[in-house]
Amino acid sequence: MELKNKKIAALVHDLYEDLELWYPVIRLREAGAEVLLAGEKPGAQYKSKHGIPAIADIGYNDLDKDNFDGVIIPGGYAPDKLRRYPDVLAFVKQTDEAGKPIGIICHAGWVTISADILKNRRATSVGAIKDDMINAGTDWVDDAVVVDKNLVSSRTPADLPFYARAFIQLLQP
Amino acid sequence: MELKNKKIAALVHDLYEDLELWYPVIRLREAGAEVLLAGEKPGAQYKSKHGIPAIADIGYNDLDKDNFDGVIIPGGYAPDKLRRYPDVLAFVKQTDEAGKPIGIICHAGWVTISADILKNRRATSVGAIKDDMINAGTDWVDDAVVVDKNLVSSRTPADLPFYARAFIQLLQP
Repeated sequence: MELKNKKIAALVHDLYEDLELWYPVIRLREAGAEVLLAGEKPGAQYKSKHGIPAIADIGYNDLDKDNFDGVIIPGGYAPDKLRRYPDVLAFVKQTDEAGKPIGIICHAGWVTISADILKNRRATSVGAIKDDMINAGTDWVDDAVVVDKNLVSSRTPADLPFYARAFIQLLQP
Repeated sequence: MELKNKKIAALVHDLYEDLELWYPVIRLREAGAEVLLAGEKPGAQYKSKHGIPAIADIGYNDLDKDNFDGVIIPGGYAPDKLRRYPDVLAFVKQTDEAGKPIGIICHAGWVTISADILKNRRATSVGAIKDDMINAGTDWVDDAVVVDKNLVSSRTPADLPFYARAFIQLLQP
């Protein structure tokens, strides 16, 4: 149990990418962390791109950087929804200011663009949003995983082994 | 890289349970193992219960216990298909005789029933096939994960953290 006593928020909304949510969530649980899914309100139900259900444990307005040791954001089209919630953006911004791990994969970069934490940050993303990432100030690179201080980023589900390992590494005591 | 130089077969067919295939597959890759998906022939395409595609790397007739260090079998309704292939059953039987790790979760027990390796074995499964497991000689228990020598079994996707950890443990040098 490498991550005992660690508490991580996973942000969800409709059309999240199936494995980009569930692989890191289950992986962190396997490592001993507590992982809570955050949605519009506790009990809110979302479906992945392929229809796998996810039920929110807490609401976005329950997110408080002091209560979490990190946050993971899946790709798919959920990030296009997530970036519309001020509570989500405030949490991501404050988590970053606290230097706590933030994981973004695929389209999740959109959330960090709107939380305005990418200026002069080295990161990657799915190719489709590369221009958005660069326009937001990112030093964009094409790599399976990029770690810049507390920010971990990957491109697609094929990168999940590297993404999860890097995120867990950052959470080590 | 705990599992460098380990090679694992993952059996696939239509209606496999999404996370019961992909979580262990990606987890083993994260740990450094090579994981090959086995289907009717190389390139055969299957869809999970929710429609996530999986493409076979090798055919069932390429399965040879001397070339693999273990096998994982997902649940869903894929096991109802998998048990119809003599090549699958022979591989599972020979892998068991070689004492190499076999992972079954949910409905995957059906494959081990037809491979006839459950007599006097302690194991679990999804509740729905408990009677089939017991009738095949299993000492059936209701636990998140059960390890009996080289056989690792779990019940449902909620058990995946325990299942993966136990399977990896068995593969340690």
